[in-house]
Amino acid sequence: MPLRIGRDTIGLPEGVYITEAVGVAGSKEKNGPLGECFDVAFNDDTLNMKTWEKAESEMQSTAVRTLLKKAGFVPDDIDVIFAGDLLNQCMASSYGLRSLGIPLMEQFGACSTMAQTMCAAAVFTASGASSRAVAVTSSHFCTAERQFRMPLDYGGQRTPTAQWTVTGAGAALISNNISPVRINALTVGRIVDLKIKDATNMGAAMAPAAADTITRFLRDTNTKPSGYDLILTGDLGRLGSELLAELMRRSGYDITGVHNDCGVMIYSPDAKDVNCGGSGCGCSASVLCSHIMQRLRSGDLHNILFVATGALMSPTASFQGESIPSIAHLVHITSVS
Amino acid sequence: MPLRIGRDTIGLPEGVYITEAVGVAGSKEKNGPLGECFDVAFNDDTLNMKTWEKAESEMQSTAVRTLLKKAGFVPDDIDVIFAGDLLNQCMASSYGLRSLGIPLMEQFGACSTMAQTMCAAAVFTASGASSRAVAVTSSHFCTAERQFRMPLDYGGQRTPTAQWTVTGAGAALISNNISPVRINALTVGRIVDLKIKDATNMGAAMAPAAADTITRFLRDTNTKPSGYDLILTGDLGRLGSELLAELMRRSGYDITGVHNDCGVMIYSPDAKDVNCGGSGCGCSASVLCSHIMQRLRSGDLHNILFVATGALMSPTASFQGESIPSIAHLVHITSVS
Repeated sequence: MPLRIGRDTIGLPEGVYITEAVGVAGSKEKNGPLGECFDVAFNDDTLNMKTWEKAESEMQSTAVRTLLKKAGFVPDDIDVIFAGDLLNQCMASSYGLRSLGIPLMEQFGACSTMAQTMCAAAVFTASGASSRAVAVTSSHFCTAERQFRMPLDYGGQRTPTAQWTVTGAGAALISNNISPVRINALTVGRIVDLKIKDATNMGAAMAPAAADTITRFLRDTNTKPSGYDLILTGDLGRLGSELLAELMRRSGYDITGVHNDCGVMIYSPDAKDVNCGGSGCGCSASVLCSHIMQRLRSGDLHNILFVATGALMSPTASFQGESIPSIAHLVHITSVS
Repeated sequence: MPLRIGRDTIGLPEGVYITEAVGVAGSKEKNGPLGECFDVAFNDDTLNMKTWEKAESEMQSTAVRTLLKKAGFVPDDIDVIFAGDLLNQCMASSYGLRSLGIPLMEQFGACSTMAQTMCAAAVFTASGASSRAVAVTSSHFCTAERQFRMPLDYGGQRTPTAQWTVTGAGAALISNNISPVRINALTVGRIVDLKIKDATNMGAAMAPAAADTITRFLRDTNTKPSGYDLILTGDLGRLGSELLAELMRRSGYDITGVHNDCGVMIYSPDAKDVNCGGSGCGCSASVLCSHIMQRLRSGDLHNILFVATGALMSPTASFQGESIPSIAHLVHITSVS
């Protein structure tokens, strides 16, 4: 049974494992530093579909189907799937997972969605409400640009603080099937909004949410950053990562040398137009479910905090002069490899 | 601990209660047959806000604040809130709940969202991951019209099968504080898509999803419709309700006399322009959390199935020629009053 630790943290019993995981990526990501790690990487980001949205749906579907195949399961073996994406009405999940026939609870946490789906799947599994749950998210550069920013055809210029939405997906099978990689604890995020209104500077909007969640977890568990091999944020990017380190320092925690960010890791610093790094819920999902899972399994990492961060921005809200509410969910993962 | 019943149903132990609930509604709903039941009803659907979206955010916020007040709690007493709405990026939830500081997991299930948030809150509570969770959803006629259909100013005509998005919200406190009203079991829905493409006939799109979920629950629990005081669907409307009865009959179940639909109940049949009835996630949320909760508490109802239905449609998908994937989640509620 899960047990509450301190004010805000949910401790999980032995028996909640990341049994298998799959990372899927697009062409730009394939050519990045982690390119070799992805289970599936596409050379053509259209995935031979007629629209970008259909391409993203197909990518999310590919992530889940590859996961099931890798784990030796069929859709009927899965009790529930927690899925989400950045598109209005979680379109990539609804259409991508439609044909699977698996009970579905769609989640929205913007770029924090992978950690949110894992939190839900972990509690369902820990409680016996499910014995096998899938957590999956995706994002696609071309769907995100036109929905949140500008049609691609405009060729709009990018500001130095902008990030590049990752074309990618990650899917994890969370179950009570014993595996070396275990989910130990969760901290559900709360909205933090320090009134940033610049939608091209999401790292700055999200860093305070990451700091809030990490600080609450460390306080609840009475641990320090140095006790972890890695504190992995989702997509703060280069600027947001600097801000997080500063905010944590002000709270009395030094994360230097322990922190890394999926948005910083996924592209080379000199990759064209990525500026501050990658973003999108497919960013942290694809990096966690490939590169990081491989390091957890190989024994290279034993004790990590996965903290996906989300800017719950809406173009409609921005048009109405609103600031960007942000959130970060934390998943504490350990490995006995 | 939750226990799986049959293939798809989650049985909950004693100890998961709907401790308190609040229904909030707009002016058209206030003037309907259930007008007297709502905890808060607004005469002015702008709620004195500058935009419809801000009005819906305020309405959702009002639902949660009224709930906490009624139950004698402050935001800090709540472990987690599961919230959602129909707006892109769950805008009403993000902005409406921003100032509460409660850990938040946003859910998207279109009009099925109230049942989905209750499923999540019930499993978290049953497992000990939370001791007090809030489930809340809202919808607003004016935000939904312009996002999903046409700007209000166009004065577009409505088809006979169209439904009217309810301006309303419902919030429920789900906790281990003993109460006469208990959540007994859950069935998480899966996507059913029979290729309906008419976004003005959502009842027809959603009825098969409701039939699928109800049938799976009845099969898992080896019960019959006549064993329940009420099978309450979310917003199938008049046409969708007829279709559901027919689909259930074909599966060997007679729901005549046991079934009712929040979308049918909330407006008078002769109310202007509502045509097939109400819709929106605020429809089932506001009816369940007011009128139905009062009947459960008074001993008028003892054993009901709450089955909120959602059309996971996206305008972008419709423009691309896609059909409407639908889903329905079921919450089995009993009362010892």
